[in-house]
Amino acid sequence: MTKSRQDCERADREDPLASFRTRFSLPEGVIYLDGNSLGALPAATPSRIAQTVTEEWGQDLIRAWNSHDWVGQPRRVGDKLARLLGAAAGEIIVADSTSLNIFKLLAALLARPLEAGRNVILSERGNFPTDLYMAQGLNQLMGGRFQLKWVDGDPADHLSSSVAAAIITQVDYRSGRMLDMAALNARARACGTPIIWDLSHSAGAVPVQLNADAAEYAVGCGYKYLNGGPGAPAYLYVRRDLQAQTRQPLTGWFGHAAPFEFTPDYQPAGGIEQMLVGTPSVLATTALECGVDLMLEADINALRAKSVELTERFIDLVASSCASYGFELSAPREYSQRGSQVSFRHPAAWPIMQALIARGVIGDFRKPDFIRFGFAPLYVRHVDVWDAVEILKDIMDSGQWRDPRFQKLNAVT
Amino acid sequence: MTKSRQDCERADREDPLASFRTRFSLPEGVIYLDGNSLGALPAATPSRIAQTVTEEWGQDLIRAWNSHDWVGQPRRVGDKLARLLGAAAGEIIVADSTSLNIFKLLAALLARPLEAGRNVILSERGNFPTDLYMAQGLNQLMGGRFQLKWVDGDPADHLSSSVAAAIITQVDYRSGRMLDMAALNARARACGTPIIWDLSHSAGAVPVQLNADAAEYAVGCGYKYLNGGPGAPAYLYVRRDLQAQTRQPLTGWFGHAAPFEFTPDYQPAGGIEQMLVGTPSVLATTALECGVDLMLEADINALRAKSVELTERFIDLVASSCASYGFELSAPREYSQRGSQVSFRHPAAWPIMQALIARGVIGDFRKPDFIRFGFAPLYVRHVDVWDAVEILKDIMDSGQWRDPRFQKLNAVT
Repeated sequence: MTKSRQDCERADREDPLASFRTRFSLPEGVIYLDGNSLGALPAATPSRIAQTVTEEWGQDLIRAWNSHDWVGQPRRVGDKLARLLGAAAGEIIVADSTSLNIFKLLAALLARPLEAGRNVILSERGNFPTDLYMAQGLNQLMGGRFQLKWVDGDPADHLSSSVAAAIITQVDYRSGRMLDMAALNARARACGTPIIWDLSHSAGAVPVQLNADAAEYAVGCGYKYLNGGPGAPAYLYVRRDLQAQTRQPLTGWFGHAAPFEFTPDYQPAGGIEQMLVGTPSVLATTALECGVDLMLEADINALRAKSVELTERFIDLVASSCASYGFELSAPREYSQRGSQVSFRHPAAWPIMQALIARGVIGDFRKPDFIRFGFAPLYVRHVDVWDAVEILKDIMDSGQWRDPRFQKLNAVT
Repeated sequence: MTKSRQDCERADREDPLASFRTRFSLPEGVIYLDGNSLGALPAATPSRIAQTVTEEWGQDLIRAWNSHDWVGQPRRVGDKLARLLGAAAGEIIVADSTSLNIFKLLAALLARPLEAGRNVILSERGNFPTDLYMAQGLNQLMGGRFQLKWVDGDPADHLSSSVAAAIITQVDYRSGRMLDMAALNARARACGTPIIWDLSHSAGAVPVQLNADAAEYAVGCGYKYLNGGPGAPAYLYVRRDLQAQTRQPLTGWFGHAAPFEFTPDYQPAGGIEQMLVGTPSVLATTALECGVDLMLEADINALRAKSVELTERFIDLVASSCASYGFELSAPREYSQRGSQVSFRHPAAWPIMQALIARGVIGDFRKPDFIRFGFAPLYVRHVDVWDAVEILKDIMDSGQWRDPRFQKLNAVT
């Protein structure tokens, strides 16, 4: 139980990951609890990007595709991600956006020969909306042959032999609820249903063991806990034994078996490279690589342990300091069912978050009434938790959140 | 007629665009004739990227989506491109890759109600292959309902009421042949066939007047003459009056009418924003914006005039200096039918190009036997043309291209 700021200072002194904070460039006077939305800037990234721009592009020009192996970059960074996510080399590639990677995998799965009656696309109603949107657009393009089924509660309860494919997010973007990947995969396998896992809110925050947990397909975002920069490329995983049969329809030249043969007919690359489409952004992928390199230096189990400490401490402190203000915990209270974020529902969620941001505590708001706090264990300290809750308490005690300037909505919330 | 290097020096002194060369960071000792494949680095780009990385991302973090209007960037840069390409604000958006943008537009066009018998997707056999590949993948996803027809010669001869959509590249990537956009659009309109124009090898090199030439749909690449950096985002044009009926199926959250409402159902944005899919890369789009900003400072007609001078001079000098070596001009001899590049066919095209590159003259090779030279008028000088031909002549006179080290193939050619 946290009794004082000194308890938190002690925890920071004993934190085996404490030195990682110096590996980021963080603004002064800010407690950043939004690394689950946009990760912070690794200190190594600016010079690496500058080198890519001025030396590789500027000096080597077109030759850099060979001399700096730009052409191998999506696979190289994918192989690094494979180490983080418990996959093998050649099972992950960096490409496009999470949305597009969902489309590729879902289209590949729906285009297979399917038994009669296997016509449902299953997902969670509370899934990150772009996953649902992409399934909608794809189904329409395929003539509306599938039934979209967005469910509440445990998606395991809805797996059946009628499900052609399921899109399931391991850690919920709003509540932080974490699903049991191994258990769901076992259940899905029994139904003959492939699951596309969305790891956007779990990769880099909780241990992910794709192979050990028998995951077949996954996608995820590069700009959250992986610290790959705004709009960083996403990634895509296909288990090795499924790659030959998994053919995606966005058949661009970078997914061709021999892109530089310039033949008029498409021939898919043999491995995970088939998941590439157009020419990848070298600058964006370089920034992602910096984030992944840094993440790989940390022990993921130490990272998870710290994440649990941070989120437990935050929940406890809000409960004790702000008990009378009506914050309803929407994250699971049991840490094993929770990712690295905590959210609360509150009728005044929007102005409360604006007041927090004005005081330098950056979390975010999600519709309709969630305030959300992400705890990226590489750079969030235990004292940050203490200070954030103190500021929240002060905002509530003083009624500061009622200030009219905190009621105005932004384009991006 | 160019008689001496002095003629070229004089032309450079008189060149109204000469000062633009100082606005690029170019390597010493290199004559860069490959800006049609990867444009050079604008001198302003490194500091602008550094600012985006360290200040916008590093200091403002998630807030930069509002404070630096990251959310408006794809549209803002699109509006700048509209000025370059003769379109109106709100008709062009920066997004994804050329390949993906082809897919979006083609899918939108094929999903419309079509008259019986209108079932052909028309393109050129010699089109840049990714355009053909994307059509293949899409057709397969749609159940193979369409017939792919890749033609040689003038595509106008193949426009008919059986063509559901045509994908036509204004300037051919190998030969540099330029089509008459207005004439083809008139012909297509008479057949009720929409054309998707690929401007990858024309934008920034020749005047493009999308509205005046009655173009309905277009896509193009950001990393060639626009100098947007390796793998820069591409762009997409839909004429205003067609936007409401042009619904693309890659329905990601950035194309939603209200992305930050996080509603489970997709509602397309009203304007060109519907063509967005996932979260765009801010770093990559920033680099593209630097290239476009620089391009907009130049007068496109002056640029075209210089481009014609450069390519005419190059063709003449190769003809006079290397007459006996069997170079077959594959670019149109008539300048009005040519973009800003020149290519020759030669049985030893590969080793000759490798020898040129080793001597600092960077063009490229395209299968099966093309050597290709791009003349980006913002930074290529008239003396570069002279010097490049002198070096080519020396390589041929001396037989240097027969050196065994020039026979080895690279991953990217």
